[in-house]
Amino acid sequence: MQALIFDGELHFRSDFPEPKLRPGEALIRPQLVGICNTDIEITRGYMGFQGVLGHEFVGTVVACADQTWIGQRVVGEINAACLTCPTCLRGDYTHCPHRSTLGIFQRDGVMAECFSLPIHCLHRVPPTVSNEAAVFTEPLAAALAILDLHHLRPSDRVAVVGDGKLGAMIVQTLRLSGAEMTLVGRHPERWQLFQSQGIACCHSDDLGQAQFDFVVDCTGQAAGLATARALVRPRGRLLLKSTFHGPSQLNLTQLVIDEVLLLGSRCGPFAPALRLLERRLIETEPLIHARYPLAEAISAFAAAHGAMKVLLEAI
Amino acid sequence: MQALIFDGELHFRSDFPEPKLRPGEALIRPQLVGICNTDIEITRGYMGFQGVLGHEFVGTVVACADQTWIGQRVVGEINAACLTCPTCLRGDYTHCPHRSTLGIFQRDGVMAECFSLPIHCLHRVPPTVSNEAAVFTEPLAAALAILDLHHLRPSDRVAVVGDGKLGAMIVQTLRLSGAEMTLVGRHPERWQLFQSQGIACCHSDDLGQAQFDFVVDCTGQAAGLATARALVRPRGRLLLKSTFHGPSQLNLTQLVIDEVLLLGSRCGPFAPALRLLERRLIETEPLIHARYPLAEAISAFAAAHGAMKVLLEAI
Repeated sequence: MQALIFDGELHFRSDFPEPKLRPGEALIRPQLVGICNTDIEITRGYMGFQGVLGHEFVGTVVACADQTWIGQRVVGEINAACLTCPTCLRGDYTHCPHRSTLGIFQRDGVMAECFSLPIHCLHRVPPTVSNEAAVFTEPLAAALAILDLHHLRPSDRVAVVGDGKLGAMIVQTLRLSGAEMTLVGRHPERWQLFQSQGIACCHSDDLGQAQFDFVVDCTGQAAGLATARALVRPRGRLLLKSTFHGPSQLNLTQLVIDEVLLLGSRCGPFAPALRLLERRLIETEPLIHARYPLAEAISAFAAAHGAMKVLLEAI
Repeated sequence: MQALIFDGELHFRSDFPEPKLRPGEALIRPQLVGICNTDIEITRGYMGFQGVLGHEFVGTVVACADQTWIGQRVVGEINAACLTCPTCLRGDYTHCPHRSTLGIFQRDGVMAECFSLPIHCLHRVPPTVSNEAAVFTEPLAAALAILDLHHLRPSDRVAVVGDGKLGAMIVQTLRLSGAEMTLVGRHPERWQLFQSQGIACCHSDDLGQAQFDFVVDCTGQAAGLATARALVRPRGRLLLKSTFHGPSQLNLTQLVIDEVLLLGSRCGPFAPALRLLERRLIETEPLIHARYPLAEAISAFAAAHGAMKVLLEAI
């Protein structure tokens, strides 16, 4: 079958072996696939992953021992956990030490004609949610992870640093709390959508000495993290949303002096993400930068650098 | 008057000018003063402070416009805040941007025959609390800051990394929650006190792959921070308690992946610290390593490196 693989370099292959159906799993044919910054980071060495790339998808179940899944349109959680270890049993299954992660760790991803995932990872897509919306379920769930782990107050002053793909999901999610929202970025051409949603948008230079209660860094860059840190008030919260390859420095002593909380957040809950999409509370179509057929995946990756969402489609 | 000053080097002076009584302040003659690791860090350049060192004390009010304070035995909070700015008005007065900090920032400290502090910083010492206990009020309050800012569950598994002066305050405070406690250190000769209090004590090498819900680093060293980080379970909390001069590195991406909360904590509440001392729930006397007269402060500093609490006493 066709597949985009990374083995130190990106290759498009037409002869990649089809996945086998394993107990408890389903085979899925993706209809639409999103390119995430994590995919791009993997091509720079992040996680040391080799195999089929990709983890954002909406697709159709084509094989499964449980026949009720066949033909279902699904999205899927990316962590395949054991569900039996102490970590899983306390509910932290996205941290299962035995997990594989779709297109990221020990499990081939979705940029192929077909891939496999445990059925406990699958969620049916409501009929009123288009493929173009459903393909954003995974990054929207990642944005919701912030609210699953932390209490955001409607009266908090919130800044989101980074007006890229992930920032777009996060500001749209956090604005639903009623909090005062500022999006800090470098791409004014992207701001109209957010401004129409009641989100202030600006360059970091325009903020002066402003201090926020809750700041999210989703820039994936050391300079962005420094900007975000500078915007946190004493006893405020700094949430790190992006993963990037390589170490980065923060002045930890100043963090202690200012009693700032540093919060990490990663994968999130799919069911509320699908509910928000069904309720049309999150805009997705304006975030689509370009669409490529799977066979042109390498061109799509080139176009995805620094761009909003690039999608791959099955032909 | 006699005073220990730091101006790039430590000097003991006998001709340092007496402080003047300012509106809203009291002049205090310290009876007993503690040497804190922060004092030692200041002599290495931390905060760029120059002036009289010291911020841990119990003393007697010798001058004050409000006569009811004269002769009172007091301890004092170290941050002299404005009490009128937005930060103070939301209750975060230890973060007042206009504050001075006793012996740390823009305010001469307590290692002198006399010093001044706003009366709103003062707390009367209950008569049953000895000077040898009261002089620990400030570091005990710093330990309590952890619980003032964060919810520790009685069923949490807690590790405190660092069996020095601050670690001794923190383990004794957190054990009162009922949580399972482990003190991780390098000084077995200090452990008997803590073991008698029901706290497990060990070297980090003895812990293997153990994972804790809540880990406090109070080592003040990069290696200690690395040890503490390794002990935090996914979605657990890592609390940084010590301030040290210079940057230090943490793998922030791994923090995001593990969704670990990094918490800073600094100065804490004096009233509950005095209540714990009055209730005899915290041991202090076994923590006293040595006592020196103020005139031998420089020798006392030399003795304080790497030791438990060294005290200075007025003669």
